[in-house]
Amino acid sequence: MPVADEHARLCLVLVATRNPLNLGAAARAMSNFGFSQLRVVNPYEIAFREARSAVGAAAVLANAQEYKTLAEAVADCTLVVGTTAIRHRELLHPMRRLEIGARLIRKRLTAHRVALVFGSEKTGLSNQDLSHCHWLMNVPTREGHISMNLGQAVAVCLYELVRNGKAGGRPEKIPPATSGEIERIGEVLLDALRLSGYLKPGAGPAAKEKMRRLIRRLHLQHADAEVLLGMLRKILWNLKTGSARQT
Amino acid sequence: MPVADEHARLCLVLVATRNPLNLGAAARAMSNFGFSQLRVVNPYEIAFREARSAVGAAAVLANAQEYKTLAEAVADCTLVVGTTAIRHRELLHPMRRLEIGARLIRKRLTAHRVALVFGSEKTGLSNQDLSHCHWLMNVPTREGHISMNLGQAVAVCLYELVRNGKAGGRPEKIPPATSGEIERIGEVLLDALRLSGYLKPGAGPAAKEKMRRLIRRLHLQHADAEVLLGMLRKILWNLKTGSARQT
Repeated sequence: MPVADEHARLCLVLVATRNPLNLGAAARAMSNFGFSQLRVVNPYEIAFREARSAVGAAAVLANAQEYKTLAEAVADCTLVVGTTAIRHRELLHPMRRLEIGARLIRKRLTAHRVALVFGSEKTGLSNQDLSHCHWLMNVPTREGHISMNLGQAVAVCLYELVRNGKAGGRPEKIPPATSGEIERIGEVLLDALRLSGYLKPGAGPAAKEKMRRLIRRLHLQHADAEVLLGMLRKILWNLKTGSARQT
Repeated sequence: MPVADEHARLCLVLVATRNPLNLGAAARAMSNFGFSQLRVVNPYEIAFREARSAVGAAAVLANAQEYKTLAEAVADCTLVVGTTAIRHRELLHPMRRLEIGARLIRKRLTAHRVALVFGSEKTGLSNQDLSHCHWLMNVPTREGHISMNLGQAVAVCLYELVRNGKAGGRPEKIPPATSGEIERIGEVLLDALRLSGYLKPGAGPAAKEKMRRLIRRLHLQHADAEVLLGMLRKILWNLKTGSARQT
């Protein structure tokens, strides 16, 4: 199977991975299935390049990019999909079975970057991590034992992505917003909500995460994101000057 | 997913496995996907029960049966399928892609035992091992890197066995916003944009329609619509009081 453009657009993002063997195994599965973009957020072992079990995956590991935050790691992606074993995490995010989710990912990959995010072996993805995700995907494991080994979960997800050659989704014609754009909208909206008193001054990260999730659920298109950002900036500017004149 | 009779009829056979981590990983994947019959032929490490990475798979490992020969291990199976990364092993055996092979295995499992055989990490299945197989199956990996990690290969094969090809996307249960809610959001947003000067006072119905289309493209959920409306009303109220004080 040749490494298609579609494959080059998939970014596998590993957050706070603890075990170098798992990093290596993830890289190996990527190499097996023709993916190359490995992004590592805040890995537990800085020496992740030494991951030993990555037989034949040296190229993937050597080219892996390291990020301080998940936000930076997914900034250029228009779709961010989190993987989780937890089935009913408060239903804050839509949850899709791997098979259904993979179909949507393949469709998006025909023209845009997609991030597939895996959390640490111990804790999975945090609520803050999840707030960067558009939706979640799970592997249909047995109720009694849903938690998969990281390297195996990566392998199964990537297999499902390449499995069906015929399922080539038609490219989506309307360019979606990138995570970076969504992040900027979130920032401006937060400022506006703070200034207007909707958010209390002491509002913590939970409020921010809630906002981020809400904006992600909107399925913003790129062009609309620009328009919305323009609106919000104008409103924010007015709130600022208004409050400036009050003092 | 309940452990069905079909699952109990699948025997995963590991021949001459060298690495206890891989044994553990295989057992874990079996547990994840609801399989229980692990058969081990001549394992390199006698202490295979100590396989450490088998989080939650202790039951599978404890019940694993040990055999001296592959012939004994598959004696009660009506179908023996070998897995191999090698694509063109002399064509002595029919070779099937995982997806096709899994379909045949599932069919057979409805009434009979099936053995799914994996060779050692280093050498795979020998020609003698292969002679016990009815046919071979491979995972569709990239030509340049076909050899998978044993634990990952097991996970991918078992996933394909339990994956439900017919699985239709269940409709999402999250209630979408009504047109009325979208309309109200549009009204408040328009007011805010007029007050902040984003929209000129003379802006006609075209601007309003454009706004409505934009909001409709957002795929708003009912709960999010309420939150957004709350935010916008608060912002609008502030814009109003701010501008009131300016005059």
